[in-house]
Amino acid sequence: MNAASISTPGIKESWINYIHDLQDRICQALEQVDGQTTFKEDKWERTEGGGGKTRLMTGGAVFEKGGVNTSIVFGPVTELMRSQLKIDGDNWFACGLSLVLHPNNPFVPTVHCNYRMFELYNANNEVIDRWFGGGTDLTPYYLIKEDAVHFHGTYKNVCDQFDKSFFPKFKKECDDYFVNKHRNNERRGIGGIFYDYQRPTDQQDVNFWMNFGKSCGDAFIPAYVPIVEKRKNTPYTSSHKYWQEIRRGRYTEFNLVHDRGTIFGLKTNGRIESILMSLPPTVRFDYNYQPAPGTPEEKLQQVCLQPVDWV
Amino acid sequence: MNAASISTPGIKESWINYIHDLQDRICQALEQVDGQTTFKEDKWERTEGGGGKTRLMTGGAVFEKGGVNTSIVFGPVTELMRSQLKIDGDNWFACGLSLVLHPNNPFVPTVHCNYRMFELYNANNEVIDRWFGGGTDLTPYYLIKEDAVHFHGTYKNVCDQFDKSFFPKFKKECDDYFVNKHRNNERRGIGGIFYDYQRPTDQQDVNFWMNFGKSCGDAFIPAYVPIVEKRKNTPYTSSHKYWQEIRRGRYTEFNLVHDRGTIFGLKTNGRIESILMSLPPTVRFDYNYQPAPGTPEEKLQQVCLQPVDWV
Repeated sequence: MNAASISTPGIKESWINYIHDLQDRICQALEQVDGQTTFKEDKWERTEGGGGKTRLMTGGAVFEKGGVNTSIVFGPVTELMRSQLKIDGDNWFACGLSLVLHPNNPFVPTVHCNYRMFELYNANNEVIDRWFGGGTDLTPYYLIKEDAVHFHGTYKNVCDQFDKSFFPKFKKECDDYFVNKHRNNERRGIGGIFYDYQRPTDQQDVNFWMNFGKSCGDAFIPAYVPIVEKRKNTPYTSSHKYWQEIRRGRYTEFNLVHDRGTIFGLKTNGRIESILMSLPPTVRFDYNYQPAPGTPEEKLQQVCLQPVDWV
Repeated sequence: MNAASISTPGIKESWINYIHDLQDRICQALEQVDGQTTFKEDKWERTEGGGGKTRLMTGGAVFEKGGVNTSIVFGPVTELMRSQLKIDGDNWFACGLSLVLHPNNPFVPTVHCNYRMFELYNANNEVIDRWFGGGTDLTPYYLIKEDAVHFHGTYKNVCDQFDKSFFPKFKKECDDYFVNKHRNNERRGIGGIFYDYQRPTDQQDVNFWMNFGKSCGDAFIPAYVPIVEKRKNTPYTSSHKYWQEIRRGRYTEFNLVHDRGTIFGLKTNGRIESILMSLPPTVRFDYNYQPAPGTPEEKLQQVCLQPVDWV
């Protein structure tokens, strides 16, 4: 049975409503934990179809730079999509939420999440393909084991409600995706979950994957905000900040060299400022920087080189 | 007549000697203008064949971070080289000098240059292809017209000694290469010259292109050092530095997203620290940063969007 024969009344509307509601809830929770600054919204439109709401916070008490974006974009399948994304069909639709938060305090981890659905249509506007994807990953600058366990444990709980095989599988996909292959396969952080190209096979399955995405999206606030609350007042020095900026360099390298979404966006007339809001506010690139053996900095680097099963 | 039939006694040796001598001369001139710090050398070897000498200066009075590197690398043609670089043959050889300098003072421009030769061999170790390439380009943070004229004029003089058509042609190639296509075709700087794949057709032509590369290499010190001397003591504020770090963000974007050499190096087991020495020491990525109309910052941005004929 292919996707075309699946009747899905209201599926897009349900997902669109969900991601907008999630955007509101996440922004509210983050403003509350920051306590100083609010998000500013930029609404934008895309010439080829659709648009988005980019919400940015900068210079907060907790968040140096953070973006929580939603977009609903659609249009004809282009030659570039055919050749580079191996996408067939006549028209496409994508809708998702994407966020990246860069905190001031090096003891508060950076976090990224993205949840999305994609549809492809033939010339008669029938759905010929549909998939769900998403994930959330944590990028600490200092390893605090209980935070890693809390973060991974939150997503394990969500996954286990749907299928016991999901968490180990999607945790591994995350470890395998956010990798600086050019740096001896160092990960950008300590992972989380990542899944992509989940193609429902019937109506029940459409609901299953949409609900899975919604449950993962809902888990963001309980997975991340308690860590921020716990660490946001940890005292830090300029040398902690220095290390944070070195690691932000690795984050930049991953996003610009390897991240499929970023590269595709940059090469296909996406809204540049919304795509690049993921880049850290201040970054250092030192020549051949190596943390001294036995330091907390080296300990963090080691778990990025060798992913750990936290739960 | 193809390259295989060109007898070139000592051509590689002559070029290798030249680039090592140039590396010494440039490092000496830069140490002199810095007056505080010297270059540290890292010699490295490549498993597949060859190696290099990476020379780095950090925390200088004038240069916040600078690298002047030479490499002589060779080995069998790999599948990746065949598919991604369209390179045929059994073995290859490349030798060149590459430098990037990031000054502290935002009124001193960043500069990059690279001069190289490449050879391809068949199974009998006969040369089946050979080319020369190179270029030097300037990335100011504030536009000072006389510096732009001096820099471009120096390379025009060199080019004109070889062929009157070279400067306009190679100036345009430079303007067309160092482009952030994802930012409305904004250039990373004000250009200079760039040439690639110059394939000599006979012995005389081999000497011609090697001598052209040497003359361009020799022009680096007179093209750049007088600008540094003139601007290194210009007073600047934290807002000048802020703008410099914003522009360094664009430099980072170009190098990681578009630069052929960087991307190929990262994907083919090049020496990462030598490749990424080009990245600026400190960088800012602000959301949707726009210089105010009529400011010196906007003036600089405008000449990056619309290249100017300076000479």
